[in-house]
Parts: sequence; C-alpha cells; structure tokens
Amino acid sequence: MGKSLTRRDEDYSKWYNELVVKADLAENSSVRGCMTIKPYGYSIWEKIQAELDKKFKETGHQNAYFPLLVPKSLFEAEEKNAEGFAKECAVVTHYRLKNDEDNPGKLKVDENAKLEEELIIRPTSEALIWNTFKNWIQSYRDLPLKINQWANVMRWEMRTRLFLRTAEFLWQEGHTAHTTKKEALEEAELMNNIYAEFAEKFMAIPVIKGLKTESERFAGADETYCIEALMQDGKALQAGTSHFLGQNFAKAFDVKYTGKDGKQDYVWATSWGVSTRLMGALIMTHSDDNGLVLPPNLAPYQVVIVPIFKNEDQFAQISEVAQQIKADLQEKNISVKFDDRDTHKPGWKFAQHEMQGVPLRIAIGPKDLEKGTVELARRDTLEKSFVEQENLVNTIQSKLEEIQNSLFDKALKYRDSHITEVDTYEDFKKTLDKKGGFISAHWDGTAETEEKIKNETKATIRCIPENTDNEEGKCIVTGKASNKRVLFAKAY
Amino acid sequence: MGKSLTRRDEDYSKWYNELVVKADLAENSSVRGCMTIKPYGYSIWEKIQAELDKKFKETGHQNAYFPLLVPKSLFEAEEKNAEGFAKECAVVTHYRLKNDEDNPGKLKVDENAKLEEELIIRPTSEALIWNTFKNWIQSYRDLPLKINQWANVMRWEMRTRLFLRTAEFLWQEGHTAHTTKKEALEEAELMNNIYAEFAEKFMAIPVIKGLKTESERFAGADETYCIEALMQDGKALQAGTSHFLGQNFAKAFDVKYTGKDGKQDYVWATSWGVSTRLMGALIMTHSDDNGLVLPPNLAPYQVVIVPIFKNEDQFAQISEVAQQIKADLQEKNISVKFDDRDTHKPGWKFAQHEMQGVPLRIAIGPKDLEKGTVELARRDTLEKSFVEQENLVNTIQSKLEEIQNSLFDKALKYRDSHITEVDTYEDFKKTLDKKGGFISAHWDGTAETEEKIKNETKATIRCIPENTDNEEGKCIVTGKASNKRVLFAKAY
Repeated sequence: MGKSLTRRDEDYSKWYNELVVKADLAENSSVRGCMTIKPYGYSIWEKIQAELDKKFKETGHQNAYFPLLVPKSLFEAEEKNAEGFAKECAVVTHYRLKNDEDNPGKLKVDENAKLEEELIIRPTSEALIWNTFKNWIQSYRDLPLKINQWANVMRWEMRTRLFLRTAEFLWQEGHTAHTTKKEALEEAELMNNIYAEFAEKFMAIPVIKGLKTESERFAGADETYCIEALMQDGKALQAGTSHFLGQNFAKAFDVKYTGKDGKQDYVWATSWGVSTRLMGALIMTHSDDNGLVLPPNLAPYQVVIVPIFKNEDQFAQISEVAQQIKADLQEKNISVKFDDRDTHKPGWKFAQHEMQGVPLRIAIGPKDLEKGTVELARRDTLEKSFVEQENLVNTIQSKLEEIQNSLFDKALKYRDSHITEVDTYEDFKKTLDKKGGFISAHWDGTAETEEKIKNETKATIRCIPENTDNEEGKCIVTGKASNKRVLFAKAY
Repeated sequence: MGKSLTRRDEDYSKWYNELVVKADLAENSSVRGCMTIKPYGYSIWEKIQAELDKKFKETGHQNAYFPLLVPKSLFEAEEKNAEGFAKECAVVTHYRLKNDEDNPGKLKVDENAKLEEELIIRPTSEALIWNTFKNWIQSYRDLPLKINQWANVMRWEMRTRLFLRTAEFLWQEGHTAHTTKKEALEEAELMNNIYAEFAEKFMAIPVIKGLKTESERFAGADETYCIEALMQDGKALQAGTSHFLGQNFAKAFDVKYTGKDGKQDYVWATSWGVSTRLMGALIMTHSDDNGLVLPPNLAPYQVVIVPIFKNEDQFAQISEVAQQIKADLQEKNISVKFDDRDTHKPGWKFAQHEMQGVPLRIAIGPKDLEKGTVELARRDTLEKSFVEQENLVNTIQSKLEEIQNSLFDKALKYRDSHITEVDTYEDFKKTLDKKGGFISAHWDGTAETEEKIKNETKATIRCIPENTDNEEGKCIVTGKASNKRVLFAKAY
C-alpha cells in the first residue's frame, strides 16, 4: 500500500489493472484466466447480489440451482446457442485420476475413467434449464415460470482482464417461460428496466437502454435488450442484457403447455443476466488516480474512523469517542469501521482507505478531543472539514446521500458530454479517434455495413436506443435511408 | 400432488426419495449424479445460508471467491489430500468443441484445444486456497486470516442420492490461517460449536459433537471435529466437519510468516464446511408419512392461508380478512402466503402444503366469517383448532415458537433413546440389527479393530464424543484396555 497508481491519462488500462489489485478487489489466480475475488471485492459483490436478489423476488422470481455440467447432446440441441459457445467451453472428459507410475507422487488421467459423453462446464444454462422446464411445464397453470440462478459460469476467453473478461465469472441468470409472446417481451423489458434502475440508483452508473442489432444479439435470442454504460476512457461497457428468446428453446427442447382451451402450444421464453463484470463498470465509472471511489450504497463500510495518537493514554481517550461515534452511526444503519490497528501508522491507513474508496473518513487526534471536533474527509472530492462531534451523525447522513447523488451526476455529465451526433463517416472516425464515447449516427440496418465499420474502426453498435425519436437520415457509410440514429462505440 | 408417500416403516429409503421430489425440494437432472435444487428446496437452503453467513461474519470471517478449477500440479501438492480425492474428480482436458464433420449438427472435442495441464473441478479448495494464501501471508500482521467461500464442488460419487450424496453439491468452506497451533485448534473447535448450535437452535436437529478417528478424518487433517445427527431410521448422518490441518498445507505450499520477533515459521490452518447435505438431515429428522415437516426457522413461509368459498362474493369477503391477517402477521416478521389460486381446490392445496411442511395452515370459510374465527392446523402434530381472528397473531407467534421447540425436543428424545451402551460384540451386533442408533462401546483405539467392525457390521465410529467422562473398560472386539467409550453407527 501507499504506492501510487499509474495515472489514468498515462495508461488507463494499466491504471485499472493496478487499482483492482491494490484496492484488494481481485487478483489473477494460478488458473489461466480465472480470478480470485478477494474479501474486499467480494463484499461489494455481495451488496450487488443482495439488492438485485431483492428486486428479483419483489417481481415474483424464485431462485433455484441447476447443475454445473451440461451433457454435450443437450448443449447441441439449440443450434445457434451451441454454435455461439462451442468454441470457448471447458470440456470434462474423465472422472478420475490415478498414480503416474513413471512419476512418483504425481497423478495422471485414468483412461479407464473416460466419460461416455463429454460434459461442458456451463457457459450459460439455457440448454440445461429448458431441458428441465420440459418436465415442469404441462399446463397454463404452471405458467409463468420465473426462475433465477446465482452461479459460476465458464467461457474460455483467450484474452482476459480482471472482472471485465475472465474464463470463470459469477453471475445471475434469469430464465422464464410464458404463455404469450407479449408477456415474454414484457418480462424481457421489465428485467432490462430493473437492471437500468439498479445501475443508476444503486451503483450510480448512468446507462442507456436499448436493443442489440442482430449480429450483437445473444446466440439463440430473437431480441436482446441491454444497458450500456460509458467508462472514463470513452469506451462503452455492456452492463446487463435481457433476452427475448421467442420459442427457440421451447422448440429445441419440446416445451409445450396446454392452454385453458385445451390446445397445446410452445411456451415463450426470456433469459437475462448481469455478472461480476459490473465490478469493472463500477471501478471505471467512479474511480480516480488515487484509487477506488465507491458510491455509499456499495461500500463495505461507508465510514472509517482513524485514531491519531502518540501514547496509550491518548489512544484510550480517542477510542472512547470513536466507539461512541461508531455506535451512533450504526444505529442509523451506517456501516462503520474503527481502524484501531496498532500495526500501521495513520498515514498508511489513510492511503489504504483512500485506495479502497471508503466514502468518508473520520480522523480523531488529541486536539479534536479538546475542541470536541473530528476531521471529516470525503473520498470523492478529497475535501476535508472539521465537524463538531455533536452534529456528526446528521452531517454524515447527509454527506453520504450527497456523495451517492453527486457520483451519479458527475458520471451522467461525463456520459452526456460524450454522446456525439455525426453525419459523415469522416466525422465518425475523427470523433472516435479524438474524443471517444458514444457516437450517434445513421446506419442502413445491414449487418454488412455494421461489419465494415467494426473492421475499419473497431467501433460496434452498442444499441438501438430506446426513448429516442425517429429521424430521417442517411447511413454514414452507404448513404442509404435510415429512420433512426443508433449508438456506436468502442467497447470493453 | 395429493398422491401419498410410501410409508416410512414400509421402505424408509423410498419414502425419502419420494418426499424430496413430491415436496418440490430437488430432483435428479439429466447429468449423472447431479441434482436440480427446485425453488422451494432452494429457499430453505437460502435460509440456512443466511443464518450461517451471519454467524461466520459475527466471528470475524470474510467471504471471498476462488476459482472452480484446480491445476493438477497444485492438486498434487498435499499428498494425503490428493490421494483422498483423486479417485473421484472431474477432469477438464479440453477447452473447445468443433463441428463433427461425420455428424452434421453435432459437436465433438477439438483435439487441437487440449490443455497442457489438466484442470480438476474442485472437490474442495484447500490446494487452490493455500497456494493463494502464500501470497497473502508474509507477517504476523496478516494473521489470523479467516476466509469463507460459498461454492459448488464436485466429487464423482458412484452411488448418489438427492442431497445426501451428489456429484455436485453446494457448500461453504472456511479456510483460516493462524500464528499458533493453539489458536488454530480453538478456531476448529469454535466452528464446530457454531455448527452444533446452528443445527440445534436453528434447524432443531440434535447433534453430538466429537472427534473423528484417524481413519475417518478429512484427507490432509491432523484432527477432524464433527457433529453427528441421528435419522429416524436409526442411521447417523455427519452434518458438519471442522478440521485442524496442522501445518500440512502450510508446508505443502510453503506458507510462512515472520513473527514479531523476526523469526519465520509455517502457519497453522483450519478448514470447515457444511453442505446441501444438511437438507437431507433436515428432512430425515422431522418429516413424517404425510411429507415434509419444517421447523418455522427454515420454512419458506411459516403460515399459509387457504380460502374456502363457493362463489365470487364469498371469495371477496374472505380475501379481505385474509389480506388483513397477512398484513398483521408480516408486521410481526412472520412469513405468510395467501394461497388464492383459482386453479386448485382447497383439498388439493391442503395436501400440497402438508407435503411441503408449512408449519401452520389457516383455513377461512363462510362460517368463519360469521363467527369471526379461523381454522388453524399445525403441521407437526396435525392438530386443528378454531381460533378467534382477534387473537390470531399472538396465537400464531406462540405456536411457531412451540413448534420450533417441540420439534427439537421430539428429535432429542428419539436420539437419546437410541444411544445404547453395550459391552460385548454380540450385544453390539444385536443392537445394531434390532434397534440401530448410536452404540456406545469401548474400542482399543486401533484402525485394525475399527476396520474389522466396519467390514463385519457396516458400522463405523461416528465420533469420539466430547463432554463424556473417561471410563475404564475393555474393547468389545479384542478385549484390550480402553479408557473411553466411542459412538458407533451405520451412517449415511
């Protein structure tokens, strides 16, 4: 600790990697592409989980747990989905190791324990879950079926980065079945809205809601809703997706229901998920050159108290005040840590808490005891002030609220100032190069043009945004007619 | 639903399997030996998780997440542990599938995507975690390190049973590191005590705390503490274990710390875990021939309200009363479901809620409206009574408490009446055969005798119980001296 980070304007990518490790969020493991989520990072993830879980349950979803491994034959059943994930899946072929006679103390695969059918570690669980839904759904009485799963999944990515792209990651995946197309579409939209509200209100991350183009859709979906956030380096990050799966999986797994009228039909489906990738979005939305900046809603502790003392007597006196403050704050449901470690000096502690993004820091020294004050430092603005101990709880309550709102406002201001409308391909490239951010432009609606732009500029269509008016225009590449602008960006 | 279960005295094993499925707790999946935990079962597991997680955090543990896959070379590092798990582990050998040219639409393993080193799906995470702890621990300042992980693990069991023994299961695994042997031993004991208290106070399952014999210990442990419960069929079930790992893993992974005195030493370790197996213990401790019986602490909903009506008008009037009761109960933190489905009749609902073990059922019919009463049925005793609506909330509060206590008392009485002291091998076999339960007997302390008894009777030493006095005696098999009775039983 105490070592500074690479500055963002020097090397944003290096800054990110260093921050994740130095703030004790996560680190690379000895397994290629897989991360270890450290306790501090994990406790932020737990807060994300708890809030989302509450929202899922409030909207009538139930949690369940399905197996980690998917038999190859099930995986193959929905063709597009299989195609989309086959090239990056971990395959279990054997179920036993044995002693390696040639290398004492070593083990090797026991070829006598080869599986008859290979098993895939789930990259996503549609195949397995729909094969199960087949048995759970007979009649309209069984619908809607609204299930969520918190789980680990695995995609064998070649280039990995902590939180943003890892071979194994944690996520939730919702899977629902409905009697009508309309109801399934509404569910997919509802969950995208829940994600958006969660991102904005809870994580203080502004997002744009929209639809993916066909080439950017989830493999197996008829429509993919998404929320797109903008990182400080001008690159977009897909923060959550919600898919309308049509009847694709119902047909692949023969899932039919009998209606009130006695007729049979395939059910309609959705799936939706967010992952530990949100941790990456969180970091890159709010943090600065001094380290992590956390919205109070997500802080493992919102306030830290650091005592400053020269002898045992002082420490005892300060402790008494600190413990009282701690109790008063906890009574108001404010989480607080009294950092009374005698193994580290105050300066070291300050640096650590700054790196870890604790929203508010209270320092109490001998002079504060005399004056009845404390020093209060705000992590996001780095402002310090002296506050009367008497008013402290109220001050902290309002500051925490202020920080939560101000982080969102700041990020929104940045995001909004980085949506650029362009009408020519030349301006498109120039903007992408010099400013980054979202570029709002007309597109002719073809996969070919989308592909050409991607190949030439690395920018992809992040989404066809909701809530924007139609507007007649011409595709920036082909000049063909277009009736709506879409949002392009380079993306994580 | 509505179909009855096989009776316990007919076929206990069949009763269990049917109950798990009919109460909607879990079912077998299309993956050999792996289960799907259904929403109702999972919500019980969530309650187990929440309570344990709180207890872990209160005692200074932090959650983290480590990778699912363990490189073979790491897995090999602690020899006994590797030996203990090598024969039943799922092995990932490839990271890609490709199209099978011979079978259009099918996929096959891509031999060009063979891993250089095989990866094992974690059967337990000591190897991976200790390889990580190596980087986290340098000085006494980093200790104690007290980590817990909620995760899925996999052991390729040949004979599986829902919850009791499945290839994949969910669990928590605690892993701690300490400066002294004493502190590590205290931690291992503390966690075993926490498990015991949780089992008894929260799950209403009486347990016996003790130590495992050397042959029953966790592979890699110097000492294994355990809690042992007794099922209704007289078989024991190991409900949780807490291991003192000595310096075995510290040595295998070279994890040393520098003390205050500047000297280096290996750290001392513990690990401890409980799993979805607890669901099996729960079912087999309390349930009856009508289905699941749940202690109120673990019930997804503690009270269900079933309306009984012949027309819309009646339904509207009953609904109003039911909604008020629901609100009043929720205010007292009692979870309640108003089963207002119009797709099922009251009798069907009664049967379902009985099968699913809802502790209290309220039925409200037209006569109840007139009289200002409701019918209250208790799941554990099947007693019914009419209660004034006015007193309902108080009655329910006290009934729930009563049920929680009475389930424990009943199970304790059964357990205590099934601990039999025997002094001859003949009596041992006779008791095991006719009565089952725990058999308290003298044993000469050798693995040979233990093995002989196991081979001849299928009974194992469940534990060397804590809190029992020493007593001079003679081994029931060899007649050699013994100074303490140990507990034998057939076990799940």
